[in-house]
Amino acid sequence: MIYLDNSATTMPSEASLEKMREALSVSYGNAGSVHAMGNAANKLLSEARNAVGLSLGIRRPQDGQVIFTAGGSEANNLAIFGSIDAKDRSGGGKVFITDSEHPSVWECAARLESRGFDVYRVPTVGGAIDLEFLKKNCDRTTVLASFMLVNNETGALYDFPAAAAIVREHAPKAFIHCDAVQGYLKTKFTLKSLGADAVSVSGHKINAPKGVGALAVTAEVIRAKRLVPVILGGGQESGFRSGTENVPAIAAFGVAATEGMKAFGERAEKLSALRRRLEAELGDAVRINRPPNGLDCIANLTLPNIKSETMLNYLSGEGICISAGSACSARGKGVSRALLAFGITEREADCSVRVSIGHLNTENEIVTFADALKNGIGRLAKIEK
Amino acid sequence: MIYLDNSATTMPSEASLEKMREALSVSYGNAGSVHAMGNAANKLLSEARNAVGLSLGIRRPQDGQVIFTAGGSEANNLAIFGSIDAKDRSGGGKVFITDSEHPSVWECAARLESRGFDVYRVPTVGGAIDLEFLKKNCDRTTVLASFMLVNNETGALYDFPAAAAIVREHAPKAFIHCDAVQGYLKTKFTLKSLGADAVSVSGHKINAPKGVGALAVTAEVIRAKRLVPVILGGGQESGFRSGTENVPAIAAFGVAATEGMKAFGERAEKLSALRRRLEAELGDAVRINRPPNGLDCIANLTLPNIKSETMLNYLSGEGICISAGSACSARGKGVSRALLAFGITEREADCSVRVSIGHLNTENEIVTFADALKNGIGRLAKIEK
Repeated sequence: MIYLDNSATTMPSEASLEKMREALSVSYGNAGSVHAMGNAANKLLSEARNAVGLSLGIRRPQDGQVIFTAGGSEANNLAIFGSIDAKDRSGGGKVFITDSEHPSVWECAARLESRGFDVYRVPTVGGAIDLEFLKKNCDRTTVLASFMLVNNETGALYDFPAAAAIVREHAPKAFIHCDAVQGYLKTKFTLKSLGADAVSVSGHKINAPKGVGALAVTAEVIRAKRLVPVILGGGQESGFRSGTENVPAIAAFGVAATEGMKAFGERAEKLSALRRRLEAELGDAVRINRPPNGLDCIANLTLPNIKSETMLNYLSGEGICISAGSACSARGKGVSRALLAFGITEREADCSVRVSIGHLNTENEIVTFADALKNGIGRLAKIEK
Repeated sequence: MIYLDNSATTMPSEASLEKMREALSVSYGNAGSVHAMGNAANKLLSEARNAVGLSLGIRRPQDGQVIFTAGGSEANNLAIFGSIDAKDRSGGGKVFITDSEHPSVWECAARLESRGFDVYRVPTVGGAIDLEFLKKNCDRTTVLASFMLVNNETGALYDFPAAAAIVREHAPKAFIHCDAVQGYLKTKFTLKSLGADAVSVSGHKINAPKGVGALAVTAEVIRAKRLVPVILGGGQESGFRSGTENVPAIAAFGVAATEGMKAFGERAEKLSALRRRLEAELGDAVRINRPPNGLDCIANLTLPNIKSETMLNYLSGEGICISAGSACSARGKGVSRALLAFGITEREADCSVRVSIGHLNTENEIVTFADALKNGIGRLAKIEK
């Protein structure tokens, strides 16, 4: 099996699984319990909070706080609804997202729209966020801006810091959120370097197990009460996210975050080499939809008149896993919004696939994949032009 | 270590961990991906959905549907906010809960109150739900009723079916929810036998890992669109709960549910024997706060003028884990709401501890615990009468 769908999910690392096993057996207590078993679980929780915090530049309480969630989608929901509901927003206001957000931001914005907010979807044609559009439309009535750092389908790295600076200038009171799930530990940033009030990350995209993510928020968000919880109850996570803490997954997340920080340079080199090899092997067989700034680990390819679904099935039969668009909407129908936003036609989007490379992949796997893809292009049924 | 805090959380079973390991290594794909790895994950998801469904009497689609969540608290939030927001409730209306709910129901109701709903908290003095209060106050303006099946602090088994029948009669359109987290696989029930529209359960209370729970809803809830999601995004869980499915924990949950069904009678006998032994060993050393109908596995004890905190620390030093009140609010301060509702004084509540037995406990452990408790009662500082 050759797994090239690392933007959908990754294989948990051995060290993260080892930590998870500890929390599942020796330290299985409820972190809220005030006995030895509870204290052991609580210690794992603190260690993981420090590790994930460090990976986002949070070294001291004044740098911010990590709120663990069940994943990236929940973190995005918390940032959006939690910040909107924290203030009296009955007067509505402007909300900015890009036109290529992940569904967990897109659908939250749509619900805000139905609640009377004016939602602006900033264009990202060619894989860059349209800062002029933002300058022209953002004003003091803006209450929220939520932009992704890296697009999950094209790998485009958006200039989030520039976008955040514009929002901050035009709307000093707006809440600024970054969905950094795809960029986390792939490109260097901190909560501060982004200029965001809150940043979402996810465990299972960085070789931790599924079921855990985090929203990191600045100390100012806490101090000025700019966030309220979406999930209410026992008041875990400083009141921002109730429910028994998923200590095994959280502890594993902490380990994977530490691994990702330590191996950042090494992994970046590896991914860069694999990307070069991929492009060399593919040659002119496909068109690579290249953003001006993009991550090496995501390559969006438009096939010559072959439906992505046809190619996916063929490759899956060859033991190779890639995707069309994101996993989040794969089983749903409809053409990729992100690819249309990028500027390719509906017909081309229907013939596009995503290859997402992980640091565990090898050059041999890349070569095997490229050969299989080229074989498929030669053999599979073309759609009519 | 003697662990007698099984209502806070349980040790995952070997079989559930084995299944989790499979989903963490061999089948780590995203269940939304349309390739071999995704299909393998999706298959685990279906198997678990069937298993958890069966444990709630759901055999066919017309019996209802299981929506996986990150835990019991999220399931309760989904039931409450999801049903309220599904309909135009701008006119407000009556909401019924008991006066001894878990914080994840209590706090949701409080938020509804702040949104203009009239929240009624049905008394549960002595450990029984006051059906007369319900008959007297419930009318056609009622939009929601959410009652727990088993109280997490006293072990009281409330007559949920009777309460649901009253609500159904007085308010045919009200949404009826049961928080069955503490009763799940401890007392026999199905979605249908409860007469509920939705039932919440949790994995880590039944020897599955943390990070997973479920809301089971009737087919009618789906058909009549009586529920909307709280977490929005990629539309997983039939659109009712977005976010990459936590397949490892969900798969493990399915296994633990099947184990719990198969071993129901055997475990019930074991718990009953352990409870008899506990009561015999304790004798008159403490007062047991006994509801008219209670689960064997939960015993709430009022100590003779010793603060629960003092006893907990002492027992923890002896390697014994019990709790004061629930883990969810243990690290918060304040006296137990559930115990006051039961009818004991604030002073008594401050001297009460919860022992929650699991089927993995032994008679020897019960004896050791009882001896330690009696020792503590003799040695620890009494508070002034």
